[in-house]
Amino acid sequence: MADPVLFEFLHTEMVAELWAQDPDPGPGGQKTSLLVLEGMGFRVGQALGERLPRETLAFREELDILKFLCKDLWVAVFHKQMDSLRTNHQGTYVLQDNSFPLLVRMASGLQYLEEAPKFLAFTCGLLRGTLSTLGVKSLVTASVAALPACKFQVVIQKP
Amino acid sequence: MADPVLFEFLHTEMVAELWAQDPDPGPGGQKTSLLVLEGMGFRVGQALGERLPRETLAFREELDILKFLCKDLWVAVFHKQMDSLRTNHQGTYVLQDNSFPLLVRMASGLQYLEEAPKFLAFTCGLLRGTLSTLGVKSLVTASVAALPACKFQVVIQKP
Repeated sequence: MADPVLFEFLHTEMVAELWAQDPDPGPGGQKTSLLVLEGMGFRVGQALGERLPRETLAFREELDILKFLCKDLWVAVFHKQMDSLRTNHQGTYVLQDNSFPLLVRMASGLQYLEEAPKFLAFTCGLLRGTLSTLGVKSLVTASVAALPACKFQVVIQKP
Repeated sequence: MADPVLFEFLHTEMVAELWAQDPDPGPGGQKTSLLVLEGMGFRVGQALGERLPRETLAFREELDILKFLCKDLWVAVFHKQMDSLRTNHQGTYVLQDNSFPLLVRMASGLQYLEEAPKFLAFTCGLLRGTLSTLGVKSLVTASVAALPACKFQVVIQKP
């Protein structure tokens, strides 16, 4: 029944609530809401990571971990796989979703592009949190060129 | 994989975030956070209700609607059925869940009982919102006597 969309609805409410608390944030104000969402995503990602079957924790290569995010994590959360994964082989990965579920309901006009970041912050945190549980420190950012497609850029932080 | 717990993790983060914003709310302060959670639950419930198959919208009896919440809605959200449903046949229903998923992770000591309401507010709203989409106005409250069991009381508001 409605289960696959439950996460999506809850995410929408969460974003709306955080923005409603801070309707006219002024310079830097929206950043706080984005950081809050990113932090929530991080902790959910950590918790999801801790529940992974042990065999998946035995990744040998960084690339295996990224492939795992694109397949298993994405299916678990969004019920689809990431569309493409690219890397410069120097610790930077670009994960592209051509129809990101949390952006699909948004109208596709250019005027909505500026609204997109608040629908991406939680997921950036989710990726960073899952990577953290898998022992990988990273920086994750997202960008949108044409709704509802988006790219997540993961930069691995070497120790 | 982790999917069944995604909602649970996100709910936990949402509760934690709303409480963190309001750590020492003073008299009436916590009520605001509870109202916010209830409102989020209401809108998620409404949205879930709108996605129900049309045949389920053709309920004839009030009791059928409540049974639907106990079975279909509960399975969709919590992956289990409600344990019992009682009514006084005058518009008041008591739905009991002997092991409510959002309370299960909470330690079972008496000292945690006072923490319980914040883990119930969203779900009260969820029930009220789903009922609203099904054309039924209601008041929904929850109570806990022994963790992790809890009761939701639904009072139908006659027009």
